[in-house]
Amino acid sequence: MIVRRNLKFKLILFYTWKQLLYYILLSTTVFILHEYYQVVFFDIPSYTIAALGTAVAIFLGFKNDHAYDRWWEARKIWGLMVNYSRAWTRQVITMIIPQSPEEETEVQRLHTIMVYRHIAFVNALRVFLRRRLPYNPDQKELFQDENTYRDAQPFLDRSEYDTFKNKDNPPNFLLQKQGEDLKMAYQRGWLSDYRFVKMEETLVDFNDIQGMSERIKNTPLPRQYTFFSRAFVIIHCTLLPMVFISELGWKTIPISVIVSFVFLSLDLIGERTEDPFENRLEDTPMTSLSTTIETNLREQLNEDKSSFPEKYKIENGIVF
Amino acid sequence: MIVRRNLKFKLILFYTWKQLLYYILLSTTVFILHEYYQVVFFDIPSYTIAALGTAVAIFLGFKNDHAYDRWWEARKIWGLMVNYSRAWTRQVITMIIPQSPEEETEVQRLHTIMVYRHIAFVNALRVFLRRRLPYNPDQKELFQDENTYRDAQPFLDRSEYDTFKNKDNPPNFLLQKQGEDLKMAYQRGWLSDYRFVKMEETLVDFNDIQGMSERIKNTPLPRQYTFFSRAFVIIHCTLLPMVFISELGWKTIPISVIVSFVFLSLDLIGERTEDPFENRLEDTPMTSLSTTIETNLREQLNEDKSSFPEKYKIENGIVF
Amino acid sequence: MIVRRNLKFKLILFYTWKQLLYYILLSTTVFILHEYYQVVFFDIPSYTIAALGTAVAIFLGFKNDHAYDRWWEARKIWGLMVNYSRAWTRQVITMIIPQSPEEETEVQRLHTIMVYRHIAFVNALRVFLRRRLPYNPDQKELFQDENTYRDAQPFLDRSEYDTFKNKDNPPNFLLQKQGEDLKMAYQRGWLSDYRFVKMEETLVDFNDIQGMSERIKNTPLPRQYTFFSRAFVIIHCTLLPMVFISELGWKTIPISVIVSFVFLSLDLIGERTEDPFENRLEDTPMTSLSTTIETNLREQLNEDKSSFPEKYKIENGIVF
Amino acid sequence: MIVRRNLKFKLILFYTWKQLLYYILLSTTVFILHEYYQVVFFDIPSYTIAALGTAVAIFLGFKNDHAYDRWWEARKIWGLMVNYSRAWTRQVITMIIPQSPEEETEVQRLHTIMVYRHIAFVNALRVFLRRRLPYNPDQKELFQDENTYRDAQPFLDRSEYDTFKNKDNPPNFLLQKQGEDLKMAYQRGWLSDYRFVKMEETLVDFNDIQGMSERIKNTPLPRQYTFFSRAFVIIHCTLLPMVFISELGWKTIPISVIVSFVFLSLDLIGERTEDPFENRLEDTPMTSLSTTIETNLREQLNEDKSSFPEKYKIENGIVF
Amino acid sequence: MIVRRNLKFKLILFYTWKQLLYYILLSTTVFILHEYYQVVFFDIPSYTIAALGTAVAIFLGFKNDHAYDRWWEARKIWGLMVNYSRAWTRQVITMIIPQSPEEETEVQRLHTIMVYRHIAFVNALRVFLRRRLPYNPDQKELFQDENTYRDAQPFLDRSEYDTFKNKDNPPNFLLQKQGEDLKMAYQRGWLSDYRFVKMEETLVDFNDIQGMSERIKNTPLPRQYTFFSRAFVIIHCTLLPMVFISELGWKTIPISVIVSFVFLSLDLIGERTEDPFENRLEDTPMTSLSTTIETNLREQLNEDKSSFPEKYKIENGIVF
Repeated sequence: MIVRRNLKFKLILFYTWKQLLYYILLSTTVFILHEYYQVVFFDIPSYTIAALGTAVAIFLGFKNDHAYDRWWEARKIWGLMVNYSRAWTRQVITMIIPQSPEEETEVQRLHTIMVYRHIAFVNALRVFLRRRLPYNPDQKELFQDENTYRDAQPFLDRSEYDTFKNKDNPPNFLLQKQGEDLKMAYQRGWLSDYRFVKMEETLVDFNDIQGMSERIKNTPLPRQYTFFSRAFVIIHCTLLPMVFISELGWKTIPISVIVSFVFLSLDLIGERTEDPFENRLEDTPMTSLSTTIETNLREQLNEDKSSFPEKYKIENGIVF
Repeated sequence: MIVRRNLKFKLILFYTWKQLLYYILLSTTVFILHEYYQVVFFDIPSYTIAALGTAVAIFLGFKNDHAYDRWWEARKIWGLMVNYSRAWTRQVITMIIPQSPEEETEVQRLHTIMVYRHIAFVNALRVFLRRRLPYNPDQKELFQDENTYRDAQPFLDRSEYDTFKNKDNPPNFLLQKQGEDLKMAYQRGWLSDYRFVKMEETLVDFNDIQGMSERIKNTPLPRQYTFFSRAFVIIHCTLLPMVFISELGWKTIPISVIVSFVFLSLDLIGERTEDPFENRLEDTPMTSLSTTIETNLREQLNEDKSSFPEKYKIENGIVF
Repeated sequence: MIVRRNLKFKLILFYTWKQLLYYILLSTTVFILHEYYQVVFFDIPSYTIAALGTAVAIFLGFKNDHAYDRWWEARKIWGLMVNYSRAWTRQVITMIIPQSPEEETEVQRLHTIMVYRHIAFVNALRVFLRRRLPYNPDQKELFQDENTYRDAQPFLDRSEYDTFKNKDNPPNFLLQKQGEDLKMAYQRGWLSDYRFVKMEETLVDFNDIQGMSERIKNTPLPRQYTFFSRAFVIIHCTLLPMVFISELGWKTIPISVIVSFVFLSLDLIGERTEDPFENRLEDTPMTSLSTTIETNLREQLNEDKSSFPEKYKIENGIVF
Repeated sequence: MIVRRNLKFKLILFYTWKQLLYYILLSTTVFILHEYYQVVFFDIPSYTIAALGTAVAIFLGFKNDHAYDRWWEARKIWGLMVNYSRAWTRQVITMIIPQSPEEETEVQRLHTIMVYRHIAFVNALRVFLRRRLPYNPDQKELFQDENTYRDAQPFLDRSEYDTFKNKDNPPNFLLQKQGEDLKMAYQRGWLSDYRFVKMEETLVDFNDIQGMSERIKNTPLPRQYTFFSRAFVIIHCTLLPMVFISELGWKTIPISVIVSFVFLSLDLIGERTEDPFENRLEDTPMTSLSTTIETNLREQLNEDKSSFPEKYKIENGIVF
Repeated sequence: MIVRRNLKFKLILFYTWKQLLYYILLSTTVFILHEYYQVVFFDIPSYTIAALGTAVAIFLGFKNDHAYDRWWEARKIWGLMVNYSRAWTRQVITMIIPQSPEEETEVQRLHTIMVYRHIAFVNALRVFLRRRLPYNPDQKELFQDENTYRDAQPFLDRSEYDTFKNKDNPPNFLLQKQGEDLKMAYQRGWLSDYRFVKMEETLVDFNDIQGMSERIKNTPLPRQYTFFSRAFVIIHCTLLPMVFISELGWKTIPISVIVSFVFLSLDLIGERTEDPFENRLEDTPMTSLSTTIETNLREQLNEDKSSFPEKYKIENGIVF
C-alpha cells in the first residue's frame, strides 16, 4: 500500500516509460511525415474520435471501478481477519474453562497454543496468498517484501511446523488442527456442547476469510475486459496525433503525448490495483496487519509490551 | 476463465468476423456510391450522432457492468462452495463423535461417506449448471470441457449413484441424503441436538449455493437490455460511414471499421461474460475449483497426497 | 421474463407506436414548415442541445440501472424462495421426529401437510404479488398469465383453504399456521426446544421473502425520477428536428426519428423493467419458479416423478 | 411517496418558480443588453462550457444516485419492520407457552400486551423520525401528515403511555419494556432459556431498524456535495445565455430557460429525495406501512377484520 | 459533519485559495503573453482537450463516489455502534440474573459496571480513531474537537483506567475485560451457558465495529487514484487558458478560472470526504454520537434525565 501522498516521478516513469516512448516516437513520426514529406494520410477530422474517446473513457472508468472494488474487498477481508482474531482470542481465554483447579495449567497452555497457532495461521495465509501463480504477471517490481513460511515457525511447535509446511494447503491444515483441539477440549469437558459449536463457528469465519482471499488471488479481472481496455487505449491514442497534426503543427507532439499519458495512466492505475496479493507496492498491507494482529493477541494474553514486534514500517512511502 | 493476458487474434476474429465483414462491406459501399456515383444521400453532419454515441456508450457501460456483476457473483458463489466445503469436512470429522470406542470404525466410515458424497455434490452441481438450456445460445464454441455426471460416480456407492442420476434435480437429492444421515447420526447419539442443528445449517448454506447458481443460470440478463444494446450499436455504427464520407474519402473505410470494432467489441464482451455457466471459455472455472475442493477435503481426511488429482490445467490460456 | 434473444418487431411497435408517430409527425411538420414556408423559427445550432443530450443520457442510464436493480432483486428474492423451500422440506422431514414408533404415521402425515402448505404458500404469494394495485399502470398488455388463489387449493385441506382465501393477507396466514403446527409438534415432543427455534428461524426467512417482495411491489421507483426522465426525453427529442433542419433537409425526418427512437427506447426499457410483479412479459418468472419448487419438494417427499407438473412452458419466447 | 405517474404542473412550479424566474430574467437581460445596447461582453464560444456541462451532469448523476440510495435504504429498513413485526407476533404467540392450564389466560393477556406494545413502537418510531431537526430544511410544504405520539396511545396502558411520552428516546423505552417482559416470562417458566434468547434476538433486529432509520434522519447527504452541486448548476446555467446569445437572438430566452430547467430539475429531484423522513410528499410511506403492520398483527391475533383501520389512503396522488 | 446548508465563502476560500491563485496567475500570464507579446505558443484548438475533459470528469466522478462510500460506511459503522450499544445494555439488564435474592445488589452493581465500561469503550474508540497517523495529512484545520482519553475516565474505576490508558490498543482491552466479566458471571451462575454465548456474540459485534473503523482509518483511498486525479485536474486546467485565449481575449481570465474552480472543487470535495476520522469539519460526528449513546444507555439504566449530557452542539454549522 502506497502511503506517500505524492508519487515520485521516478516511480511513475518506471512503469510507463515504454509506452510513453511509443507515443513520443509516434507523434514525432507523424509530425515529420506531415511537415517535411507532406504526407496527408494522417489528416483526420476531430469528430471521428469523439465517440471513441467517450466510449474509451467510460470503459476505463468501469475497469478502474472494478479494480478498486477488488482491492477494497481484499482490504475488507483482512479487516475481518483483525476483528475475528481478537474475538477468537477472547473466546479461547474466556470460554475454554477447566473442570477443576488441577486442570488450570493445562488449560492455560492450551489457550496459548491455540492463540499462537492462530498467529501462525495469519502469517501462513499471507505467504500463501503472495506466492506467484503461473498466470499472474511476472513483471519486474521496484519494491518487494520477503515471503516465507518461516514467519509462522515461532508460533508452532516443531513437529506441527514440519507437517504444516509440506501440506498442499498449509493454512487450511492449521484450521483443521484448531478444530481437532476444540473437539479434544469438548471431550475433556472444558467446553460445553454449546460453546464448542460457537467456537467452531468462529473457525468457519476463518474459512471464509481464507476462501475469499483465494478467490481474489486466483481469479483475475476477466482478461476480456483488461485486454480490450488496453487495446482501445492504444487505438485511441494512436489516432490522436493524426487528428491533431493538421492544425497543431509541432504542438502535436507535446499535446498528444500529454493526452495519451492521461489515458494510459487511467489504464495502468486499474491494472496495478486489480491484483492486491502480488507482493508489490500496491498490495493490501498484509505484513503490517499481521504485526497488528500479533501485537493485539499477545496483549490479550497479557504478555509484556516490550517483546512486541515493531509497528508501521514505512519505507519509501510504502507499507507492505 | 481466460488466464492468458493477451487474447489471440484468431480468437477475437472467431467471434467477430461476421460483424466486421458487415462493417467493411458497408463502408466500402458507402465510399463507392459517394465517390463514383456521387450519391449525396449519405452526407450527414457529425453532430447528429454525437448524442447517439454518448447514449450508446453509456448503455454499453451499463451492460458490461451488469454482465461483469453476474460473472463475479457466480465466482463468489463458487468461492463460498470452497469455504463451506472445508468447513463441512472439519465439522463432519470433529462433531460426529462415537458414543463408545466400539462405534469408532462405524463413525469413521460415516465421516468418509459424508465427505465423499459432498465431493460428488460439488461435481454434480457443476454438471447440472453446465447443461444446455432451451433458451440459451447454441453458438459454436472454440473450446469446451467434458460435462457428465460420471465425474460424481467415484464418490458415491453404486446404488446411490443409480438413484442419483435419474433424479429431476440430482444435486438436491444428495443434500437430502446428507440430511438423512445427520438424522441417523443424531438418533444413534453421535450428534447432540445442538450439533445436529449446526450441521443442518451448513447444509442450508449448500442449498443457498446451489440456488444462487441456478438463479444466474436460469435467468439471463433481461433480453430487453441485451437486444437493444445490440440494436443501438448497429444503428450507430451503420450511420458512422455516412457521417465520415464527406470529409474522409477513402479513409472512411479504415476509420469507420476501427470505430465500429470498438463498439461491437464493447457489446460482445458483455454478451460473452453475462452467462458464466455455459461451458465455454469465459466460464467460471468450476472444473478447476472442483479439483481444488477434492484435494483440500481429502487432505483434511488425511489421505495421501500422491493420489490427489492434478491441479491447474491451463490449456490454450484457459482454465475450465 | 423474455427468453427469446431477438425481440419481435411487432412487440416493439406495440409499446412504442404512439410515441414514434409523434416524432414522425413532428419532424415532418418541421421539415414542411422550414422547406415550403421558410419558417426559420426552428433554426437552432447543434451545441445548444449537446449538454442536454449528455445530461439526459446520464439520467436515463441512472434510471435503467435502478430499474434493473429492482428486477434483479426481485429475482434474487424468489431465488431465496427456492433455496429455503428445499431447506424447509429437508428440515421438516429430518427434524420432526416421533417419540415412539406408534407416532410414525401421524408424524409423516404432518410432514406432508407442512410441505404441501408450503407449496400453497409459494403459489399464494405469487398471486398476492401479481394482483393490480390502484396506483400501478393499467396498460393493455400483449401477454398475461392467469392469476388466481385456486392454484393453492390442491395443497391445503378444504376448511383451511376457505379461511385462507378470506384473509386480508393470505400468505401471512399460512406462515402463522406453520408456526402453530411447530408449536404443536414441540408440545407433542416431536421437536426439541432447539429444533423448534431453528425451524421458526426458517419461517422468519419466509417472512423476509414475502416482505421484500411486497416492498418492491408496493413502492414504485420514485415518480419524481420516472416522470422527469420521460419529460426530459420529450424535451430533448422535440428539439432534435429543429437542430437538424438547417443542414439536413428531408434527411431530418429519418435521422431525428432514429435518434428519438433510441432515446425513447432507453426510457421505455427502464419503465417496463422497473415493476417485476405486474403479470406482464418482463415479470420475474414466478409461475415457472413455483413449478420448480413444487417439483423439487415433492421429489424430496419421495413422490413419483410421473405426477410432477410440466416444466419450462415457453410461449411466444416468454416464461411467466 | 408520490404514486401518481404524472406530476401536476402546479406541483413542479411550486418548488421551482423562484429559480425559473431567475433564469427568465437573466436570459431576457442578456438578450436586451446584447440586442439593444450592443454589449458584446457576453459573447462566449460554446466549447468553453462543454467540459463544464459534462462535469456538472456527471456530478448531478452522482448526487441523484446517492439521494435515491438513501431513499431506497429507508424503504428497505421499513420493509424489515414489516417482516420482523409479523415474525415477532408469531413468536410471541407460539413461543411463550404456559406451564399449566391455569396460566393460559395470563399468558394470552401477555401475548396481547406484547403485540400491542409493538404496534405502539412502530407508531412511535414513525413520529420520532418525522420530527423536525434543527439542521433540516424548514421549507413550506404543499402536503403534510399529522405527526403526534397520540397514535401510540391506544396500544399502551395509561401509565406506560405517560412514562413513554416523557422519555428522551420513547421508541427505545418500549424495546426496553419488551425485554423486561421477556425476562419476566423466562422467570415464570413460560419461555425456555433458548426461546428467551431467540426472542431477544428479534428485539435486536428492532434496535437495528430504529438505529438505521435514525442514521438516515440525523446524517444528511454531506453538505459539501449538495452545496456544490447547486453552485455548479447555477454557474453553468448562468453562462448558458451568454453562450447562446451570439447565434440564437431572441431564441436565447426559451432555449436557455429550457436547458436550465432540465439542470435545475436534476438538482432538485436529488434534494427532494435525499431526506426520506421529513414529513413531506416524497417521504417513505411510514403512515401507510404502520397501518399495514397494525392490520397484519391484529389478524395474526385472530381479531375481527371489521375493526381494522382503513388502508391505502391516496390523497392528491400521495401516500404518506 | 457540516450541517449548515450554505457553506460560508470564507470556508471555501480557506481550502482553495492557493490553487485559485495559481489559476488566476496562469490565465493572466497567458493573456498578457498572447495579447501584448503575440506569443502564439498557446493557441490550441478546443477539441484537443474535449476527450481529456470527459475522461477527467469521469475519473473525478469515480473518486467522489468512493470518497463518499468511505464516509457513509464510517457513518454506518457508528450507526451500528448506537444499535448494539442499546441492545448490549438491555441484554446486560435482562440476561444477567441473580441466583438468589441476596445477590441482587451485587448483580445490579455488575450491570452498572458493564454498561459504564461500554460508554468508556465508545469514547475510547472515538479518541483512538481521531489520533493522527504518520501518513495522514497534517493540514492546518479551521475547526477541531478536543481528543483525549480523559473522556473515558468517569466511566471506569481508577485502577482499570490506569491500565487502560497504557495499553497498545485501549478499546480492545475494554472488550477483553467485558469478556472476563461475562465468564465470571457465568461461573457465578448469573448467566446460563447459552446466554453467556449470546452476550459474547454481542461483544464480537463490537470487535467488528472497532475493526471496520480501524480499516477505514488506516487504509487511505489508494494513493495512485488520489494522486492522479489531482495531476489530471492540473493538466486539464492548465491547458484551459491556452485553448480559450485565441477567441476569448481578456474573458479568458474569468472563464478559465471559473471552469478550473469547478474541476478543483470536484477534486477537493472527494479529498476532504475520503478520511472520516481525522478530527476535522467533515468528520463522522462521533462526539455527538457518543453523547447520544451515553444518554440512551443511562436512560435504560433508569438514571435521572437531569444529569444527562447536553445534546446537539452545533457550532459554526458543524457537528463533531
